Amino acid sequence: MPLTTDARGVFPIAPTPFLDDGRIDAASIDRLTDFYLGIGATGITVLGQLGEAPKLEHAESVAVARQMIRRAPQLPVVVGVSAPGFAAMRALTQEVMAAGAAGVMIAPPNTLRTDEQIVGYYRQAVEAIGADVPFVIQDYPLTFSVVMTPAVIRRIVQDNASCVMLKHEDWPGLDKISALRGFERDGSMRHISILTGNGGLFLDFEMERGADGAMTGYCFPDMLADVVRLSAAGSRDAAHDLFDAHLPLIRYEQQQGIGLAARKYVLMKRGVIASEAQRKPGAKLAPAARAEVDYLLSRLARIDSRARIS
Amino acid sequence: MPLTTDARGVFPIAPTPFLDDGRIDAASIDRLTDFYLGIGATGITVLGQLGEAPKLEHAESVAVARQMIRRAPQLPVVVGVSAPGFAAMRALTQEVMAAGAAGVMIAPPNTLRTDEQIVGYYRQAVEAIGADVPFVIQDYPLTFSVVMTPAVIRRIVQDNASCVMLKHEDWPGLDKISALRGFERDGSMRHISILTGNGGLFLDFEMERGADGAMTGYCFPDMLADVVRLSAAGSRDAAHDLFDAHLPLIRYEQQQGIGLAARKYVLMKRGVIASEAQRKPGAKLAPAARAEVDYLLSRLARIDSRARIS
Amino acid sequence: MPLTTDARGVFPIAPTPFLDDGRIDAASIDRLTDFYLGIGATGITVLGQLGEAPKLEHAESVAVARQMIRRAPQLPVVVGVSAPGFAAMRALTQEVMAAGAAGVMIAPPNTLRTDEQIVGYYRQAVEAIGADVPFVIQDYPLTFSVVMTPAVIRRIVQDNASCVMLKHEDWPGLDKISALRGFERDGSMRHISILTGNGGLFLDFEMERGADGAMTGYCFPDMLADVVRLSAAGSRDAAHDLFDAHLPLIRYEQQQGIGLAARKYVLMKRGVIASEAQRKPGAKLAPAARAEVDYLLSRLARIDSRARIS
Amino acid sequence: MPLTTDARGVFPIAPTPFLDDGRIDAASIDRLTDFYLGIGATGITVLGQLGEAPKLEHAESVAVARQMIRRAPQLPVVVGVSAPGFAAMRALTQEVMAAGAAGVMIAPPNTLRTDEQIVGYYRQAVEAIGADVPFVIQDYPLTFSVVMTPAVIRRIVQDNASCVMLKHEDWPGLDKISALRGFERDGSMRHISILTGNGGLFLDFEMERGADGAMTGYCFPDMLADVVRLSAAGSRDAAHDLFDAHLPLIRYEQQQGIGLAARKYVLMKRGVIASEAQRKPGAKLAPAARAEVDYLLSRLARIDSRARIS
Repeated sequence: MPLTTDARGVFPIAPTPFLDDGRIDAASIDRLTDFYLGIGATGITVLGQLGEAPKLEHAESVAVARQMIRRAPQLPVVVGVSAPGFAAMRALTQEVMAAGAAGVMIAPPNTLRTDEQIVGYYRQAVEAIGADVPFVIQDYPLTFSVVMTPAVIRRIVQDNASCVMLKHEDWPGLDKISALRGFERDGSMRHISILTGNGGLFLDFEMERGADGAMTGYCFPDMLADVVRLSAAGSRDAAHDLFDAHLPLIRYEQQQGIGLAARKYVLMKRGVIASEAQRKPGAKLAPAARAEVDYLLSRLARIDSRARIS
Repeated sequence: MPLTTDARGVFPIAPTPFLDDGRIDAASIDRLTDFYLGIGATGITVLGQLGEAPKLEHAESVAVARQMIRRAPQLPVVVGVSAPGFAAMRALTQEVMAAGAAGVMIAPPNTLRTDEQIVGYYRQAVEAIGADVPFVIQDYPLTFSVVMTPAVIRRIVQDNASCVMLKHEDWPGLDKISALRGFERDGSMRHISILTGNGGLFLDFEMERGADGAMTGYCFPDMLADVVRLSAAGSRDAAHDLFDAHLPLIRYEQQQGIGLAARKYVLMKRGVIASEAQRKPGAKLAPAARAEVDYLLSRLARIDSRARIS
Repeated sequence: MPLTTDARGVFPIAPTPFLDDGRIDAASIDRLTDFYLGIGATGITVLGQLGEAPKLEHAESVAVARQMIRRAPQLPVVVGVSAPGFAAMRALTQEVMAAGAAGVMIAPPNTLRTDEQIVGYYRQAVEAIGADVPFVIQDYPLTFSVVMTPAVIRRIVQDNASCVMLKHEDWPGLDKISALRGFERDGSMRHISILTGNGGLFLDFEMERGADGAMTGYCFPDMLADVVRLSAAGSRDAAHDLFDAHLPLIRYEQQQGIGLAARKYVLMKRGVIASEAQRKPGAKLAPAARAEVDYLLSRLARIDSRARIS
Repeated sequence: MPLTTDARGVFPIAPTPFLDDGRIDAASIDRLTDFYLGIGATGITVLGQLGEAPKLEHAESVAVARQMIRRAPQLPVVVGVSAPGFAAMRALTQEVMAAGAAGVMIAPPNTLRTDEQIVGYYRQAVEAIGADVPFVIQDYPLTFSVVMTPAVIRRIVQDNASCVMLKHEDWPGLDKISALRGFERDGSMRHISILTGNGGLFLDFEMERGADGAMTGYCFPDMLADVVRLSAAGSRDAAHDLFDAHLPLIRYEQQQGIGLAARKYVLMKRGVIASEAQRKPGAKLAPAARAEVDYLLSRLARIDSRARIS
């Protein structure tokens, strides 16, 4: 099931579950996949930044992706294949596409500066992975230090027919979504799917600006799905009410370094994964932070029963 | 009234009010100062990043600072004096201290990398401005790309008796506050005041980690003052309830480029400044963004009557 | 005498001479200016990076520029006016142009990333300083982290009639000169003067690619003038022979931090300035480095008699 | 033959030879290895930045390293294993060490900022690859944006017994060598080998400051070996004479992007490798640049007969 420009809804960024001793926890991968199926995810993204991908051996990476693909045959699975060189990117792409992946996601290396360099990089990447592989542009300047204007994204989209989606996490980025949808309206750019990241911090307004949904790892992807659905249905106040209830925790997860620790901790408390362990080197949730997350959950539970997880 | 290590409460970062034609709006400066006095601010910070300082002529900078100092003689006024060279930093410091400023704030230039370079920079800055001028370290890696560990801040504090405050806006930074307060407890660092920035995004937990208050430009500094007071009084739930009501707007203001535009727009709607104008070059609030801010205000008004500003 | 697109030859970047106690050494400024006149400089650039401009009070900056302008009325003097804000840039520009400067030089702030941002910055700068002030683009990515493609430079040139010169110090940059001259040949860009920097490290080939001369601070500007003359006259081997003899010292001066110290040391030994002192904070030439420069001079003296300066 | 702190002489950074169609040219690998053996190299470094390592499949990387190791059993071969994650670093290390590599070289990822982060990274890397694998610190701020003070290098050396060498290519870096050798003399740091990079641009003085030799890819490694030998023997003028003759070409190779193209071109002309081809994406030597290299070779040939390669 190839990824297409019609993709919408929520593609959770899947964390990689580990056992306390650092081995991959295959049972939790199945449980996590089933959880995503159950909450109405319309796709799954694996081996993203959040997935601790750089800590996996190549064979492990392929195995994790393959297991999720097999467990959720009805969902498109996008695989992060960003790499310091095109050889590794091509090798991983070929393996996961052969295993049934729907497409791949490519972030720009942080050495790129000029518009030409960015456009050229994606052209070379497509040459490397093959023009028949649907791909997602990951636009995340806060982490990658690469700034893509709407015009640069348009050039990438127009130059490469296999570009089907933008993972939008420029920050701030509301006007960028409006600009890109404006390009579609004025006919200067073909339509692509836009799913938004940034941990969901602006999802409420991103939907209203024209996003098709979310691709991020917030620990309540069920809430993301609800907000996307409510927003798409025009229930603006209801969407914001639910979103705002989660915002204190969404905001808490924004903390680089401990964001992933907080997510794994909540997913463990929710019974989705067996352990909050990260493979080394990984940040641990200090006792003070753990208590803060617990407090946020207790507050959230007053409004959203899914947070009632002692 | 020199700034001391006992400073606490809220030091709003003052925007610089302009008329629509770009001239400084002196009447609004008075009104803004009176507003700060009225909401229980315990100090004011002028000529910060938010204050459009680089767009002011030197004489204008001094005039803005002097006007606020005169209007609020009962409050300590901190003046941002970060500059590309020590000559300009010294010149501005001397003028504003002579005018009655309580102290100055110094951000590190973004060329600094190593611990030694950062410590050395503050030593040289103190040589330039004089060891008798109380100063604030501005620790804002997201903007300045300079990362100071707690140990580096301790060295700056221990090396320079005139360092009285940290404007803490590392992100994430909760554990940094805990680490610095730990240094104080174990006797390895003398006490300093810690006020937090980041637009207030983590103020709820920053207070609980040991911050003394906030130094930031959020458009409802009255809320900041309430949260600081409630938190200091141990009214945890009440502090979070109020904070969470404002979080959607606080979050909205985090958008670089339009954050200041949103702040000036709200301050104008609140009747504090006459115009939302920024001096050129400045971001304008697009109609879509303006409508989003209005919507956030209308939602906030259900809980906080101060937001009832049609 | 306004700077024009016909500028060619050598514009030395003037260091600012200080006395050992940190005061500006006015007598040495005169001597330095006379020295430049004597060696056939066709212009002078003051208050560049090399000129320790950020260490000067505003009034000092203007005084230094004015003194050189008066001393060398027959030469165009370019003044560096890069500043963190347009207000300071405009103020300094107005004063030095009123004092008789030929034009100003503007470097991009290191926050710029995209092509649009760079082009927009120069448009705003021209608005600030006035469209009647001839200006030089300083293209120095190694220091400013801003990468301008030839196409971006072309847009700046075409958008702003007052752009008359490129200070070219991209590295590597030979192909950039060729590209820009190609734009002139194909009619897509009007002619501008191109003087090259980088301490002269590639001057030999830059001339052959189409540069009009050098704008840099190497301690033997007389050699630069000779190489430019020989190269322009088609004496390729002679130009390279002379250049290569100086290359070990040119290379030595490339060392950031001590390059300026080495230059001032040699200019002092040559009798041009009275002291090698830099205003604080400044790098000192360690004894080992001093001995290395002396050794390089002794080797150079075998070929170029101007280096016979015990 | 494990790499030790006694390493000295010249370890050329080997380019990876490709055929014109992009396949690895195994015959040229043998010829290149024999060439290094013939010119007195005391070691070889493969899969460095210069070796186009990111363009190689994992299996290719191992194969290239293994072939050189087998061809030069009498020489220590160092393998670059820098990777975005420790899993890939460990995997490659295990394979090449099993194949007989003498040690590995590790560059810091460009996200590191503080002293603690750098020291912590090398500790984690040693945990990942094993404390029994000799490793080389690559200190190359110009490319990696990570600045290590001498004190940080000392901490890495003292914390990790398996650290045997510094590939020194900080720039400028002469004083850094002096500082590190000073640490050895004052007993605060154990002795390590220091080989220098930067394309050889400062090799003349680096040797005099205490370096043990060179580890770089200049296209005349035979000259590097001669300069190291002459300098070690105290023949200062002779070392500089030879070095200076090559400096125009060394300088030319400094141009990022075309430096490798120039090296491969000269190595091809010297008959060492069959083709100058780089695997895609790779910079091509433009005709103008090719002519410039030819000119530099013709000038060099007047002094060094090894450059007589029409």
